[in-house]
Amino acid sequence: MNLGNDTFKILIATDIHLGYLEKDAVRGNDTFVTFDEIMKHAKENEVDFILLGGDLFHDNKPSRKAMHSCLEIMRKYCMGDKPILFDIISDQAVNFGSSRFPWVNYQDENLNISTPIFSVHGNHDDPTGADGLCALDLLSCAGLVNHFGRSRSVEKLEISPILLQKGSTKIALYGIGSIPDERLYRMFVNKQVTMLRPREDEESWFNMFVIHQNRSKHGATNYIPEQFLDDFLDLVIWGHEHECKITPARNEQQLFYVTQPGSSVVTSLSPGEAVKKHIGLLRVKGRKMNLQKIPLQTVRQFLIEDVTLANHTDLFSPEQPNVMQKVQAFCQQKVEEMLEEAERDRLGNPLMPEKPLIRLRVDYSGGFEPFTTMRFSQKFVDRVANPKDILHFTRHRESKDNVKEEAIDFDMLLSRPSSEVLQLRVEDLVKEYFQTAEKNMQLSLLTEQGMGKAVQEYVDKEERDAIEELINYQLEKTQRYLQERRVEASEEKIDEEVKAETEGQSGEREKRKKMRAERKEKRKEVRDGADEAREELTGLGGRREDEVREQDCR
Amino acid sequence: MNLGNDTFKILIATDIHLGYLEKDAVRGNDTFVTFDEIMKHAKENEVDFILLGGDLFHDNKPSRKAMHSCLEIMRKYCMGDKPILFDIISDQAVNFGSSRFPWVNYQDENLNISTPIFSVHGNHDDPTGADGLCALDLLSCAGLVNHFGRSRSVEKLEISPILLQKGSTKIALYGIGSIPDERLYRMFVNKQVTMLRPREDEESWFNMFVIHQNRSKHGATNYIPEQFLDDFLDLVIWGHEHECKITPARNEQQLFYVTQPGSSVVTSLSPGEAVKKHIGLLRVKGRKMNLQKIPLQTVRQFLIEDVTLANHTDLFSPEQPNVMQKVQAFCQQKVEEMLEEAERDRLGNPLMPEKPLIRLRVDYSGGFEPFTTMRFSQKFVDRVANPKDILHFTRHRESKDNVKEEAIDFDMLLSRPSSEVLQLRVEDLVKEYFQTAEKNMQLSLLTEQGMGKAVQEYVDKEERDAIEELINYQLEKTQRYLQERRVEASEEKIDEEVKAETEGQSGEREKRKKMRAERKEKRKEVRDGADEAREELTGLGGRREDEVREQDCR
Repeated sequence: MNLGNDTFKILIATDIHLGYLEKDAVRGNDTFVTFDEIMKHAKENEVDFILLGGDLFHDNKPSRKAMHSCLEIMRKYCMGDKPILFDIISDQAVNFGSSRFPWVNYQDENLNISTPIFSVHGNHDDPTGADGLCALDLLSCAGLVNHFGRSRSVEKLEISPILLQKGSTKIALYGIGSIPDERLYRMFVNKQVTMLRPREDEESWFNMFVIHQNRSKHGATNYIPEQFLDDFLDLVIWGHEHECKITPARNEQQLFYVTQPGSSVVTSLSPGEAVKKHIGLLRVKGRKMNLQKIPLQTVRQFLIEDVTLANHTDLFSPEQPNVMQKVQAFCQQKVEEMLEEAERDRLGNPLMPEKPLIRLRVDYSGGFEPFTTMRFSQKFVDRVANPKDILHFTRHRESKDNVKEEAIDFDMLLSRPSSEVLQLRVEDLVKEYFQTAEKNMQLSLLTEQGMGKAVQEYVDKEERDAIEELINYQLEKTQRYLQERRVEASEEKIDEEVKAETEGQSGEREKRKKMRAERKEKRKEVRDGADEAREELTGLGGRREDEVREQDCR
Repeated sequence: MNLGNDTFKILIATDIHLGYLEKDAVRGNDTFVTFDEIMKHAKENEVDFILLGGDLFHDNKPSRKAMHSCLEIMRKYCMGDKPILFDIISDQAVNFGSSRFPWVNYQDENLNISTPIFSVHGNHDDPTGADGLCALDLLSCAGLVNHFGRSRSVEKLEISPILLQKGSTKIALYGIGSIPDERLYRMFVNKQVTMLRPREDEESWFNMFVIHQNRSKHGATNYIPEQFLDDFLDLVIWGHEHECKITPARNEQQLFYVTQPGSSVVTSLSPGEAVKKHIGLLRVKGRKMNLQKIPLQTVRQFLIEDVTLANHTDLFSPEQPNVMQKVQAFCQQKVEEMLEEAERDRLGNPLMPEKPLIRLRVDYSGGFEPFTTMRFSQKFVDRVANPKDILHFTRHRESKDNVKEEAIDFDMLLSRPSSEVLQLRVEDLVKEYFQTAEKNMQLSLLTEQGMGKAVQEYVDKEERDAIEELINYQLEKTQRYLQERRVEASEEKIDEEVKAETEGQSGEREKRKKMRAERKEKRKEVRDGADEAREELTGLGGRREDEVREQDCR
């Protein structure tokens, strides 16, 4: 493909998770270093713009350090005299309507932007609170990011593309910031998602779509099937999934390509994250495209291996008195080999951090026992970035039928440090709580759904007012209801009316019962979703787990 | 004074406290509205620059909304094509050394700044945490503020001025961001504060100094006497104090002028805050200056009055059976009168918020009783911005000798909602705790001072890691100590050594004892400082207080 004034050069990256583990003495700077590398690639390649797929920040309320580092890196790389060679021909007030400065930053006459960033938000950095602001809005207000793909309605989505033109090449850039998967799924099914298309020369546009949702099926409706997406699209850039599958894959049904750049930092010790991290240099000319993979040099190595103890009965057997020592020595040998491999791989790359992430998954089925990992960790504390959780014991596909639908043990949880408990999905805890609570203990005025959402916002997003806002909302609603019914102010009467109201709200008791039964069925799925979190608990406490399924922690 | 290319025009303001009470339904936007007004004055007056005296933000970690609003307002007013007509001739790398972009923002070729802001930080928005960042650093990194007056050393201060030149006028601008008063006092006394002066033409400079400290004496060393400041100064701009005393007052001893702009928002219902709020338009030509007061239009009115019930025995006396009703009616009448006065004053000023702040201080000495204020509040809920705390009961200079030096009742405190307790000064609580704790209960490894500071940072600044950092620091120090002494690892031995170490640390027991006695004397002062906070408790709980002294809550 010839380069020239008709060719867009776009750097694509996603899930940079600035601030992930920023307090960690070893890994604390990883996300900032890699973001710097990504921006440097953009500069060196003189791209027209940078396109990010969400989760620029790991925390909904980034720390001051994370925000400061981000501002610093952006100001360093996004500003300068390099001329911008493309135009925006769509209505910017629509494209960037959520910003206080609803126009693209490089056209602001007070800012000298050389490399504009366009980004949707992810689930980690999505808008929250009464003002509906997110971390990207601060960057947008500072003139450093063009935040797009934000919807105001929860009922329907009308996506107006940003229309970009460079010479004869025209790109229609669509995007949706992260939305709960179930809701977006429902909206697609109900035909409430519309992608607006430019009227003229419909066929002359290269149509790109940025999405930050589950791509792999996490539940019946807990993902977005590619088939849902319009078939006029040419390229879908899929954020949220951390595994690097950046080479565009053709969807033979819809006839578009999907590129999944993957995260630029390992946030869970699962196989998907062990795939070498890349960003993409996308060239678009006319309706043709080419995506060049750029391997990231600064990403900490991550090696993962599985061993099945039962396959090594030549070395040890469960009956031997000193089997534990032998197994430990075996595991240690394995880790040493992995460290050697990491070192060979790191040779000649001075940008790569010295200590790799190492995960050895030990299947101890067949009568073996897991061992406490403290001493083991000590051995590698100077050579491995994650000494505390190198080993992960699993028992593979065994006694699967015996797995009981145990309720979450709240007492156990509450006795643990809150930081660990927080790694469980709060939503699940609330659901579980409401399901296991005695009927007469349940709250009458606050719905499960509302409370679950509020508690989750409170914890996930550090949205301190979420619960208060919910309660005020419900209080006002109830007061209005009581006023309308002109209930006299006796406590008994009010109790009665409240009962009537809440039952009215949810329809009838029957409906509720049915819902509860449905939820029970779903519970298995929900529990799978919490496995990653539990894994942390297991790794630390050495608690046994049957059939722990690993999953990306996004 | 003739205007022209030799005259600096500088807008001075301080203590804007963005985000103060931002959750309040009535007052939530006050600080943002007034900041907008201040910036508008700067623009309309085409000032050369804006000079802020600290506490731009109320919270050390401003909410996303507060930061977003600030960025929005600054980008709106600070950027544009108005040319900058003055130069900086000092070494900017020294002046702005704490910034990642250590040069003045208007000389950054990528930013089109029309009105630069120069600011020191206040005690509310000072640097905290391992990275030593403050909210201003985010604005500085975004290119919107020039943060100066930051010292790295806690032992000595060398203040290099920013040297500004416009035509023939030369200003040397000195500043110190907020430092604990006692520490700065000590540094002044020990001659550890040096103000560097330009070598050439020493007499040709107009010397300005921005400071954010206690100006009124809050304790023996808990303020900065004007006499401490160098007498070569021409004008001191004093932040932190909320009362508007903006007209420059001549210090006859040092022969400089002091202007105290005062806050632009009422943060405590004390008489000082009832003084009409202003900002200043300072003109400097050669070594002459002129300060024009600009009254702020958007500031919520605040009226405060005192009544002494014993002066109205013609209307009621403590013996009457219905005295309480009469007193209430009397107070109600007073508030009505204040409301009328506020309304008259507001006439013709559409920018002023409708509901004023009203405070009626009721001296009930002479046998009267305070009454619960709930019903009273109800009457004014639609007309007063602070219906819950209109009334404040005091008993004037009575039974002063009976006031016992009661310890703070921690159980009482702990049973209250944390939001109320937080309004007490945490530092005092920690001090008090260490002083009242049994000797054998005291911590051996953590010093009172260290722990007090850490707990205060934790609460005041939401610095979550402060306590952890202190403990890690002390742990490492102790481990080092033990290693050096090669203590064998028996628990008893370690205990002994730790005892030796901690006693060594503080000198001897005697020294400690003496310090404790000194602190006891100071305790009265400390308690006075907590009065403002207690007033809140009193107002809500209706608890009686003897001789409650009001004080600015900064």
